[in-house]
Amino acid sequence: MGQTLIEKLVTRNIQRHEEQTGIHSVTAAKAGDIVTVSVDRVMIHDIFIPFVAEKFEEMGFPKIWNPDKVVLIYDHLVPASQQDDVRHFKIGDAFAAKYGMKNVHRSDGICHQLMTEAGYVKPGDVVFGTDSHTTTYGCVGAFSSGIGYTEMASILGTGSMWIKVPETIQVKIEGVLPAQVTSKDIILTLIGDLGADGATYKALEFSGSTIENMTVASRMTMSNMAVEAGAKCALFTPDEKTADYCQISLTEQETALKGDTDATYCQTITYKAEDFVPVMACPSQVDLIKPVSQLAGTKIDQVFIGSCTNGRYEDLEAAAQVLQGKTISPFVKLIVTPASRQIFTEAAQSGIIKTLTAAGAIVTHPGCGLCCGRAGGILSDGERVVATNNRNFLGRMGTSKVEIYLASPVSAAMAALKGEITPP
Amino acid sequence: MGQTLIEKLVTRNIQRHEEQTGIHSVTAAKAGDIVTVSVDRVMIHDIFIPFVAEKFEEMGFPKIWNPDKVVLIYDHLVPASQQDDVRHFKIGDAFAAKYGMKNVHRSDGICHQLMTEAGYVKPGDVVFGTDSHTTTYGCVGAFSSGIGYTEMASILGTGSMWIKVPETIQVKIEGVLPAQVTSKDIILTLIGDLGADGATYKALEFSGSTIENMTVASRMTMSNMAVEAGAKCALFTPDEKTADYCQISLTEQETALKGDTDATYCQTITYKAEDFVPVMACPSQVDLIKPVSQLAGTKIDQVFIGSCTNGRYEDLEAAAQVLQGKTISPFVKLIVTPASRQIFTEAAQSGIIKTLTAAGAIVTHPGCGLCCGRAGGILSDGERVVATNNRNFLGRMGTSKVEIYLASPVSAAMAALKGEITPP
Repeated sequence: MGQTLIEKLVTRNIQRHEEQTGIHSVTAAKAGDIVTVSVDRVMIHDIFIPFVAEKFEEMGFPKIWNPDKVVLIYDHLVPASQQDDVRHFKIGDAFAAKYGMKNVHRSDGICHQLMTEAGYVKPGDVVFGTDSHTTTYGCVGAFSSGIGYTEMASILGTGSMWIKVPETIQVKIEGVLPAQVTSKDIILTLIGDLGADGATYKALEFSGSTIENMTVASRMTMSNMAVEAGAKCALFTPDEKTADYCQISLTEQETALKGDTDATYCQTITYKAEDFVPVMACPSQVDLIKPVSQLAGTKIDQVFIGSCTNGRYEDLEAAAQVLQGKTISPFVKLIVTPASRQIFTEAAQSGIIKTLTAAGAIVTHPGCGLCCGRAGGILSDGERVVATNNRNFLGRMGTSKVEIYLASPVSAAMAALKGEITPP
Repeated sequence: MGQTLIEKLVTRNIQRHEEQTGIHSVTAAKAGDIVTVSVDRVMIHDIFIPFVAEKFEEMGFPKIWNPDKVVLIYDHLVPASQQDDVRHFKIGDAFAAKYGMKNVHRSDGICHQLMTEAGYVKPGDVVFGTDSHTTTYGCVGAFSSGIGYTEMASILGTGSMWIKVPETIQVKIEGVLPAQVTSKDIILTLIGDLGADGATYKALEFSGSTIENMTVASRMTMSNMAVEAGAKCALFTPDEKTADYCQISLTEQETALKGDTDATYCQTITYKAEDFVPVMACPSQVDLIKPVSQLAGTKIDQVFIGSCTNGRYEDLEAAAQVLQGKTISPFVKLIVTPASRQIFTEAAQSGIIKTLTAAGAIVTHPGCGLCCGRAGGILSDGERVVATNNRNFLGRMGTSKVEIYLASPVSAAMAALKGEITPP
């Protein structure tokens, strides 16, 4: 009987786990099974490291199972905007030093960007992180999901974790996307169709010609936001694009990471790429999706282009193409935050930063920036922002009377140009 | 009888004032005279605009004397790191709209950088600003000084202001500065020699071959920090470098803006350029100056390169030269904040940003940044920072248990490289 992508991936992991530990669980994982997986990599970010460290000490493990498999990334709090932020860095540095963790990024960018960009995650890996958007690494065909700090402390001690193998929703997209429609519009549309809890504890498995022709960066936008429909993970089959991105040659096992034709899906959703239009998630629900054309004319105060959802080079480039040689609306604040040091540097070198600043953008240092609402463009009562990140929850970027519209970098740049939501 | 530079400048201004108003004060201004000057330009920044606006309304002026002479600059609070910051922008925008002020910079950089960079201040001008470091514009031979919001509101209504003509301390510097010694080392040394109140309400007048060979950007560092010795203003004679910087041809009147040989100075200080060494202002007094060699080995946690004192292109370039092809000490946070949008863009285009980020720096958006301690690298108890800005007061960049060393960009970059204070 056929397997879904996640079932295959988990099967291989538990076979390896069995070889290493002698503990047998199941021969072929299927949705609903509760199994113990070997963890290939974990990610802890600055917000959670104090809690993880405290729990780990409390649990009394003498050492970290494999310090090289742990990545500590400071991103939400960099550079510190409050005194307490520094405490997180101090605790993180001390913990890393005590247990011999070498993979510490103190100012290199957003955790989810770095995990694949810096080569920590490969196709087929099982990865956990202390952040809900850990689903991102499905873009390279890894199973990755967010966990709490107690679970993370436990993994640090044991190198393993239990999971219930998720059921899978198959999402097939065929055809060519219209101009100015991006993978952000696809994932927003999907979340709108599923609802914010429509994929709870399920795997999303993407396939079809549209997906095959999509860059890894664009896939990342979709796996990143999968959790906004409640998904446990979101998976793309590793292909040549993945291999280029990861700078590896794919093994036969890796390219075989795809759902079998006779696999069991709990639901199949099919889209024609040509049917997608630019959309936004409207205040203040991530599944309240409307076409940009319906929102045209809505006045805005600020635009934010960045985050682990849409802060990559292709996103900055798309915004620069809209803004090239033009000037943003005089009263609009346009804040652009590259997702990583590498992206920031590439954008500086290629002239994209010049295009953006000449148009009136504030280009900030890489990191989470405004997305997590700690600094870098906080909004106030009655203000409206078009943002490329993944959540428009009340109070996320300022007061609870701020209205957040989630959009693609193209739609965001268009809004900055006109001072109001404008169809591309 | 001869005049000092400030006496000449004020004389010309009050002659003009007399022509315009018919009010006669004095024929030739001399130190100690109390006179009314015509204001050529004023600068208000985001921190003070709510107070200026309130006072202006309270005073009941029907209009601003000349809205084109008013420059409103948002810099301390950009991008907003707190909800209340947005209130400042809203009040500023409303005030500018109500009174027809067109010179509003919402995200272009630090006020003191923009006033000369954007051409608002010319040699011989009389300029006031709601910030203590308004002394900066003396770099192009303007009289400029910081005032409070009530005085600013009064100028907005009347276009004039009273001043007591300051006595002048003449500072003559001859010769060639040693390698790795900059104008920051000169001004820090001078402040150490004068003491933090040594030039209270006096003008500093700089001359000598060292000054003549100095860029306007380097002079700016010195006029900027003059207020740290209490000076009312700090003046440089306009020359060809000034003309190039201001993109003007100098008039005879402007090139004559220099102290007469028989002028009366309350004090003359003479330096040989060759005697200067790299110095730092030690915690937590701006006049506690020590040679970097004496401080060698002092461990540091952070370095800040930026501010209206040292956030210009040549400052970033000097830091990049130190850091080229190298990596900063792993636990040091190096934060670089260009002083303006123009500088940021130039540094992106020329590859300086690449050099800095490759070395491990966090390059932020232009603005006041960490200097005013609102965000962008706040420090905590027991931390030590080497910073290129102008004040090391207790609590300025974090808690009152942070130690701030003020230094040149060269000394700051050296410290970042080694993780400790290191002589160049």
